[in-house]
Amino acid sequence: MKITLIGVGLIGGSMALKLKAKGFASYIYGVDQNLKHLEEAKELGIIDEIATLEVAVSNSDLIIIAIPVDATRKMISKVLDLAEPGKTFMDVGSTKEGIVTIIDNHPNRSRFVAFHPMWGTENSGPESATGESFAGKAGVICDRENSADDALKMVEMVAENLEMHLIYMKAADHDIHTAYISHISHITSYALANTVLEKEREEDTIFQLASSGFSSTVRLAKSHPEMWVPIFKQNKENVLDVLNEHISQLRKFKSALEKDNDELLEELIRNANKIRGILR
Amino acid sequence: MKITLIGVGLIGGSMALKLKAKGFASYIYGVDQNLKHLEEAKELGIIDEIATLEVAVSNSDLIIIAIPVDATRKMISKVLDLAEPGKTFMDVGSTKEGIVTIIDNHPNRSRFVAFHPMWGTENSGPESATGESFAGKAGVICDRENSADDALKMVEMVAENLEMHLIYMKAADHDIHTAYISHISHITSYALANTVLEKEREEDTIFQLASSGFSSTVRLAKSHPEMWVPIFKQNKENVLDVLNEHISQLRKFKSALEKDNDELLEELIRNANKIRGILR
Repeated sequence: MKITLIGVGLIGGSMALKLKAKGFASYIYGVDQNLKHLEEAKELGIIDEIATLEVAVSNSDLIIIAIPVDATRKMISKVLDLAEPGKTFMDVGSTKEGIVTIIDNHPNRSRFVAFHPMWGTENSGPESATGESFAGKAGVICDRENSADDALKMVEMVAENLEMHLIYMKAADHDIHTAYISHISHITSYALANTVLEKEREEDTIFQLASSGFSSTVRLAKSHPEMWVPIFKQNKENVLDVLNEHISQLRKFKSALEKDNDELLEELIRNANKIRGILR
Repeated sequence: MKITLIGVGLIGGSMALKLKAKGFASYIYGVDQNLKHLEEAKELGIIDEIATLEVAVSNSDLIIIAIPVDATRKMISKVLDLAEPGKTFMDVGSTKEGIVTIIDNHPNRSRFVAFHPMWGTENSGPESATGESFAGKAGVICDRENSADDALKMVEMVAENLEMHLIYMKAADHDIHTAYISHISHITSYALANTVLEKEREEDTIFQLASSGFSSTVRLAKSHPEMWVPIFKQNKENVLDVLNEHISQLRKFKSALEKDNDELLEELIRNANKIRGILR
């Protein structure tokens, strides 16, 4: 199967490597604004050919849009204009409402499937891509009823080849759940990094003392703004809602500490420990 | 060398396994309030013999106190009363001021070395212990000038056998730095777990959607209150100081989002990204 990969970074590149290894992709056209990334992707075997959008799409059965969510919003209508019968279009963005709304009345809407693989790292660019990233993780398909059956089947096959398990949701529900489970983690981690950078002026001490616990909590703070500013903006209301709750949860810790309320402190921690039963 | 291990949990147990594997410990006496843990530790080869405090200490060259910091505070004077010439006592607690202050005027103060290995996990109990935990991590020795030279040398040998690199600090400075680098990470992680548990009532969805990013940020929230309530209390002023800064950093994200201030949002993220240059 011939595939167009729009965006040859971490997510797109990792998908390409896996789909090739599985024999699902026979030939991959790479489209990207960043020529250096395209050349790297070709060298790394992620893509076979650098192409323009039009040439790539006209030669492909499947078109994967793997660029930041603001860029997806900007170009998706134009990309869908190129949908001839039999072609399937999918994205991999971390927000969904903003994307599906914009193509709601597009004549080729049914050729598009809104997809979100629940995997990522703090790294970016083709050199971070790895074929073994998605196995065992969740893939979310949103608003399946708005996609043609054959397009849906195609994306389900993609997920199967990535060895992901599928979950189906409304785009609006997806954005609420990801605000809880993914987006707030990033804000927390950024804010934690900024706290430490603000308070701990001795960088050398941070490096020397940093425990595995700190490294793990602050890992996501290495993630780039090019990807995350658009996500926070597109999911603004949900993210603000969760962020307010998070600040209020931190205030409970503050109050328990200030008032030497050991029972409350212990209760807050015991409640948090429940996550142990949910995340193995 | 014969060693007494007071507290046969994650940290003490892991130290014992490594010190045995290295041939540094020839025989280990286990002392613990929890008889089940003592029996498990014996079965796992962490200790060789279950003993009373008095018998264990009288037969040992080195006494390692590896219990929660509130329990250490309560028993440390009594333990130091047993210090005969040539015996070395050390703790492994995550706070230091509260512990060294209490023995400041103890006649055997110089037999004690305040030590903190910068390693831990969200798990506890002897069955979580592993011999390969400390290698490459930092070990902090506090207020070295208050320990006898031979006692200091003994703890330096322990650190060497654990394959840790040593850092020397004042106890007060240690407590400031660990508030930044370890304690606040735990509060953040607890608060994040509570946020998600509060907002996301569908536990099944958390489990299904949880990405590696979320799991990593929330991992520390599995840590037990028995260990962490005493740490937060003993380091109350420093922890509150960092917690206030953290809440104010989160408020900046909130404000940037509410006001659609993209430049501020990007600046906050770019600043957080600096952690990449500090933590490899």
